[in-house]
Amino acid sequence: MDAAKLIDGVLSGDRRAVARAISAVEDGSPDLEQLSTGIYASTGRAATIGITGAPGVGKSTLAGELVRLARDRDLSVAVLAVDPTSPYTGGALLGDRVRMQEHATDPGVFIRSMATRGHLGGMSLAAPEAVRILDAAGYARVVVETVGVGQAEVEVVAATDTALVVLAPGLGDAVQMAKAGILEAADVFVVNKADQEGASEVVRELRQMLHLGAVRDWDPPVLAVSARLRDGVDGLWEAIEEHRRHLEASGELAVRRRARLLHEVESLAAERFRREASLVLAADPALVESLEARRLDPYRAAAMLVREAAAAPE
Amino acid sequence: MDAAKLIDGVLSGDRRAVARAISAVEDGSPDLEQLSTGIYASTGRAATIGITGAPGVGKSTLAGELVRLARDRDLSVAVLAVDPTSPYTGGALLGDRVRMQEHATDPGVFIRSMATRGHLGGMSLAAPEAVRILDAAGYARVVVETVGVGQAEVEVVAATDTALVVLAPGLGDAVQMAKAGILEAADVFVVNKADQEGASEVVRELRQMLHLGAVRDWDPPVLAVSARLRDGVDGLWEAIEEHRRHLEASGELAVRRRARLLHEVESLAAERFRREASLVLAADPALVESLEARRLDPYRAAAMLVREAAAAPE
Repeated sequence: MDAAKLIDGVLSGDRRAVARAISAVEDGSPDLEQLSTGIYASTGRAATIGITGAPGVGKSTLAGELVRLARDRDLSVAVLAVDPTSPYTGGALLGDRVRMQEHATDPGVFIRSMATRGHLGGMSLAAPEAVRILDAAGYARVVVETVGVGQAEVEVVAATDTALVVLAPGLGDAVQMAKAGILEAADVFVVNKADQEGASEVVRELRQMLHLGAVRDWDPPVLAVSARLRDGVDGLWEAIEEHRRHLEASGELAVRRRARLLHEVESLAAERFRREASLVLAADPALVESLEARRLDPYRAAAMLVREAAAAPE
Repeated sequence: MDAAKLIDGVLSGDRRAVARAISAVEDGSPDLEQLSTGIYASTGRAATIGITGAPGVGKSTLAGELVRLARDRDLSVAVLAVDPTSPYTGGALLGDRVRMQEHATDPGVFIRSMATRGHLGGMSLAAPEAVRILDAAGYARVVVETVGVGQAEVEVVAATDTALVVLAPGLGDAVQMAKAGILEAADVFVVNKADQEGASEVVRELRQMLHLGAVRDWDPPVLAVSARLRDGVDGLWEAIEEHRRHLEASGELAVRRRARLLHEVESLAAERFRREASLVLAADPALVESLEARRLDPYRAAAMLVREAAAAPE
């Protein structure tokens, strides 16, 4: 399938084209730039929701509930499950997950796992493009679910409109999360497995920690739910919608999207530049030799490289 | 303290200067380049050891044991405990840890926690410079311990000469680690808490997974130890030393250090470039407007930015 056909397929919501386009993002395909250009005008309509939290807190079950709630409201919905990738083999060991089976035959639902196999800049740069593909394909809601709660995954979730941070009794306490900078990323806190012992303590601890934070326009609510028992999930849906209304009414949506966009462009440019810097280094054995002989330190070498690459012809 | 004095202090092994220099790295201080230049010629002597693994596997106890074993052999040793940092507040919530108290008064031991508060490129770029400071200060062994096992932390540990990956019964199973690309980073596997139930299963599972991997010059040994009971730690020390002898005899040490160095220089250059790209974006409201109006997509904008920044005067 060539890039033009792929773009047409994505824009018409063809599932096979959408899947291939996301694979192109994962692989860092040469078609990526053309694909990005072709779909960009058709993006910005989906409401994007991120889900992060420690392994075992029930993020997938929660994502499944959001799918159900969206479908109950006749909204099409896509789920992008972001898996950590190996920086060494470049391969993901997880394939698309066999789960959310009940939605498998629903044409209004698209579920996809994603890793990065070649995209420059890793998941934090690949995920936003994959989200745009789902957005351009017409899904009204795009849910981005992370496998774990590392810094890269928080970055991915922070690039959605509404970020859910999920906790559960006995897993990933609030202090640990605060350390990793996760609390600041949350628009809505979900204490899942609310039917289990210790859930109210997690809610209390979380509320105490939040009181220590800066006062903001939007006070992230803390919701106790049980996704498995479908308890409290309607309230969660309402909180997500309310956050969205807040973003739109306050003008924050445009401000956030602009900041995200500029950050993404800077990062993409930096990654492109890294590739050029690598070529300049490869073509300059004297510079490499100075580095190895410890006559030139990495910081000065980097500064030289920026100057050299800038001076190099296109 | 000015940069020249700081450099003299580090090179003479003055603890206060070393501490300040590491703070300068954390902060991304303007003195960093001068500092880097001043110490670089005096680096490359320390043997560096990385420790990563899930929270709770006993990395700190293990680091403490390595300190003891080094001191038994009259080797000076520094421990750098790398904490995750908040990408949002820019602040670390952990201070220097109150631990390894028994070594607190030993002048041959230096222990320091580290976060990044302003260093461009985060921990994966800050840590190597901090390690060089400890190296230049004359520590024979530099142990880099991570708090968790995220991708950024694996990168930090992969930048040491000998990377230990620590597991323990019931914590961070091998499949999870394989997913995160951690197995490939290991030069030595440590199954800690070997006195606990399930340890031999972890060893067995790990050995099975390793058999699936590519054949390499160095077969990472799997060692069962109990750091707390000081059981098996002498064997661990010997394995680390043997790995070092292998690196030196095979020429792999030079190959690895060169690859790490080039990668670091490229990353530092990319981060410098990102800063320039940000300035170019800020000075080009028409470009930003095109992006926001979706006439120009992020990938094409990044390509333009690389060209514009290259054309910009110094």
